[in-house]
Amino acid sequence: MNDTTSSSDFSVGALELLRRFKQDNSFAEGYAAACLERAKAVEPVLKAFEYLPRDVSRRPGPLSGLPVGIKDIIATSDMPTTNGSPIYRDRVPAQDAWVVERLRQLGATIFGKTVSTEFAWRHPGPTTNPWNARHTPGGSSSGSAAAVAAGVVPLALGTQTLGSVIRPAAFNGVVGLKPSFGAIPRTGVHPLSPSLDHVGFFARRVDDVALALSLLTATSDADVHGRPLPGFELDPGRGITPLDKPRLRVVRFRNWADVEAEQQKTFETVAAKLREAGALVEAREWNELDTVNWNTINTILASEASLIFGDLVERYPDRTSDHLKTLVTAGKNTSAFDYLAAKAIQEKLRAALTEELSGFDAILTVPAFGEAPQGLDFTGKAEYCAPWTLTGAPAISLPAGFGKNHLPLGIQLVGGYRQDLRLLSVAKWVEGVLQFEPGLPEL
Amino acid sequence: MNDTTSSSDFSVGALELLRRFKQDNSFAEGYAAACLERAKAVEPVLKAFEYLPRDVSRRPGPLSGLPVGIKDIIATSDMPTTNGSPIYRDRVPAQDAWVVERLRQLGATIFGKTVSTEFAWRHPGPTTNPWNARHTPGGSSSGSAAAVAAGVVPLALGTQTLGSVIRPAAFNGVVGLKPSFGAIPRTGVHPLSPSLDHVGFFARRVDDVALALSLLTATSDADVHGRPLPGFELDPGRGITPLDKPRLRVVRFRNWADVEAEQQKTFETVAAKLREAGALVEAREWNELDTVNWNTINTILASEASLIFGDLVERYPDRTSDHLKTLVTAGKNTSAFDYLAAKAIQEKLRAALTEELSGFDAILTVPAFGEAPQGLDFTGKAEYCAPWTLTGAPAISLPAGFGKNHLPLGIQLVGGYRQDLRLLSVAKWVEGVLQFEPGLPEL
Repeated sequence: MNDTTSSSDFSVGALELLRRFKQDNSFAEGYAAACLERAKAVEPVLKAFEYLPRDVSRRPGPLSGLPVGIKDIIATSDMPTTNGSPIYRDRVPAQDAWVVERLRQLGATIFGKTVSTEFAWRHPGPTTNPWNARHTPGGSSSGSAAAVAAGVVPLALGTQTLGSVIRPAAFNGVVGLKPSFGAIPRTGVHPLSPSLDHVGFFARRVDDVALALSLLTATSDADVHGRPLPGFELDPGRGITPLDKPRLRVVRFRNWADVEAEQQKTFETVAAKLREAGALVEAREWNELDTVNWNTINTILASEASLIFGDLVERYPDRTSDHLKTLVTAGKNTSAFDYLAAKAIQEKLRAALTEELSGFDAILTVPAFGEAPQGLDFTGKAEYCAPWTLTGAPAISLPAGFGKNHLPLGIQLVGGYRQDLRLLSVAKWVEGVLQFEPGLPEL
Repeated sequence: MNDTTSSSDFSVGALELLRRFKQDNSFAEGYAAACLERAKAVEPVLKAFEYLPRDVSRRPGPLSGLPVGIKDIIATSDMPTTNGSPIYRDRVPAQDAWVVERLRQLGATIFGKTVSTEFAWRHPGPTTNPWNARHTPGGSSSGSAAAVAAGVVPLALGTQTLGSVIRPAAFNGVVGLKPSFGAIPRTGVHPLSPSLDHVGFFARRVDDVALALSLLTATSDADVHGRPLPGFELDPGRGITPLDKPRLRVVRFRNWADVEAEQQKTFETVAAKLREAGALVEAREWNELDTVNWNTINTILASEASLIFGDLVERYPDRTSDHLKTLVTAGKNTSAFDYLAAKAIQEKLRAALTEELSGFDAILTVPAFGEAPQGLDFTGKAEYCAPWTLTGAPAISLPAGFGKNHLPLGIQLVGGYRQDLRLLSVAKWVEGVLQFEPGLPEL
C-alpha cells in the first residue's frame, strides 16, 4: 500500500476523492497504485477482474488519478475485451468504446476489465460476493459491482439489459445507476439487445454516479439512440443538490409476496424514515406494466439477441453456454409480428411513464427480492429491474441495510424518462435521510 | 376565376408566387379562391381530391395565401382524413398532424385532402393522370402529384415508403422531393412502415420543395426519428444556391434493360447535357445495394405493416383490399430474426452511403421505368425509388421530357444521408441546365 493511502481511504467516494486529490498531490499520485495493491490482495477470493491494468499513472483532466473499472463487454484498445466468453479470450479491440475514450480524455485511469457474465447474459463468471464468497455478486456486471463494494475502485462501468446494474448494486451494497435509455452512447459496447442495452455506473455515493453521468451523457453518431440529457451540469465542488421532501410513489408488483421478509422489512423501515423526514410516500400499483412487462422485455431481448448471437452459437457450440443457446432459440421462434407488438408496448409504456409519475418526483420500490442468492450459478431475479429497463426510465439502487445472512439489501428509486437529474436529486436527499453506510466488507 | 388571376398563373412555382403576393395584394387575396375554381373545373376528370376546402381565406405568415394540398393519410382537424380507406370515410381526426399544424402556423391555406391509395399501399384511388386520363398518376401520393401537375395547387404534401413521392412526381411531370429519413416529423401521418415512412413534397420547381423542407424540418417528441437537418435556412428572396458543375455518379441497376427505350434516351440526353455544361458524370454500379435492396425493404415493410393493419383486415374483411391482406399475410409469415436482419442491412447500407458518395455530390439515376402505365389499377414499379427509401437518402425527381405517349419522363438525383441541402443545390443547377418546363396539361 502506498505511504499516503490508508485502508479507510478505499471507502471514500469518487467525488470526495477528487477533492482530496486537489489538496494532496502525493495522495492523488499514489491512489491508483494503492488500488492496484488492494486488487492484488483481494483478487484470489473476489475474482472481480478479467484483466488488471499494467500502467496506472496519472493523466491530466477533471478525473485525473481516479481509477475506473470497465465491464469486460466494453472495448478497450490496450487491454483484452473477452465479453465474458472464451471465444474472445485475449482479443484486443482496435478501438476504445466511446465511453472509454471519453474517460481517458477526462483523465481517468482505465483500471482494468471487470468480469461480466457471458455476453452480459446469464452464464456466470467466477466473481464472488465480497460480503460472502459463497454467494453470487449478481450479474451481469458482476466484477464492477464487486470491485466497487470491495473498495478496489471508487467507480466502475456496467451495463443493464434486464437488471444487470441495479441488481448487482443491491447485492453488493453499493450505489448503482442505470440512466435513461440513450443517455450514454453505447458505441463499442458489445450489444445484447440494442432496444434495451444501457450503460450505467457503480460507485459509493449518489454524487459519484451523478458526476459520471454528467460527464458521459452525450450524443454519438454511431449510436442512433444516443441523446445528451438536458441541463445536466454538475459542480464537482458541491455535488448534486438534494430535492427536499420528495413525493414518492411506492410501486409493488403482484409478486411482492415473493420478496424476502427482511427485504420487505428494510423497505418499510426506509419508507417510514422518509415519511418521517417529510417525504410524501404513497403506494399506487401500476397494473398494466406489471402484467405485460416480463413477456414484453423477454420477447424483445430474445429476438434481438438471436440476430446478434445466432451465428456464434452455431459456429462455436462448445464455447457458448446453454443459457445463450436457449436465448437464441427463443428469439428464432419469435415472429416479427410478436417482436414488433412488444416494441409497440415498450413505446406505449415509455410514454405512459410521464403520466404515471405526474404528482410524484420518483417511484420507490425494491431493486431485488432480497439478499444475493447462495452459489455462483444463478445471478438472481430481475423482475423489479426489468420494468425500468423496458421503459428506459432512470433507476438508482441505494444500500439500505443487511439481510439475515449479513448480505446487503437495497432500495430502488425510479424517475421519469430523461428526468435523471431530478431522480438523482431525490436520491441525494434519500441518501442523506438514511445515513446508511455499509462500509467495506472484510476480505 | 378571380379577376387578377390568369390561367398562366397556375404554372407559377410556389416561391415565385410568394414574391408576387408581396407585390400584389389583390393577387394574393384571390389566388387560393382561383385555385378552388380551377379544382372544381378539372376535378370531374382528374379526381385528385377526397375533399376540397370550404374556407380558403388568407392567414398571416410567410406562406400566407399559398394553397397546399394534403395527402389524405395526413390528419386534419377540420377535414375528413380517409386514409384512402372506406373504413375511415367521413372520419375527422381530433388533431392536426404536426406538418399540418406547422403549415397553418406559417400562414399556408390547407387546400383540401388529396387522394391516396388505400393506407398509402397498392390499392388505387380514382385519380387519373392529368396528361392522359387513361393512365395512372402513380401512387400512393396520387392526388398530390396530379393536383400539382394540373396547376390546382403549387405545393402538396406526399409520403413515401417505397416509391410514393418520386414515382408519381415523374409520372406527372412535377418536382418531387423525398427528404432524408427523419427530416420531417411524421406525427399524425398514418403509418405504413415506421422504419421507411417519409413525408415529402410535390411542386413545380426545385426552389419550392427546398422552401417547404426548410420550413418543415424539425424535431418532434412524438416521432422518435425526427431530427432537424443542419444549417438549412433558405432566403425566400433568392431561393437555393446552385452547386455548379457537380460530380454525379450514375447508378444503373441490373434491371436497366427493363427501363423503357424512351426513358433511357431521355436519361442519356440529360447526362450528355450535364456533362456538356461541366458536370462530372461517371457511371459506377452499386452491386450490394442492387442485390439486397428489394427483399430487404419488403421484409421490413410487410413486417411493420402486419402489426399496423393486422387487426383491421380481420375486423373489416369486406372493406380492406386484397393488396393489404396480402401484405399483412407476408408480414405475419416473417420471423423476428429475418426482420431484424433486414433492419441491420438497412443500417449498414445507410452507413455505406457516405462512402459510396465520396468524391460525388449526388447520384444520377431514373425515377421510374418510363411513362405512367396505362389503366388505373397498377401504380407502377418502385425499384428505382426503393433503394433510397431504404437507405433514407434524400432523393428528388425532376421533369426531363416526354415519352412516346406524350406522358412525362423524369430523372432522379440522390444525395448523402442528411445532405439534403447539397442535393437541392445540385438539383437547382441541373434544373437550370435542362431548362425543361412541361407546362400545364390540357384538361
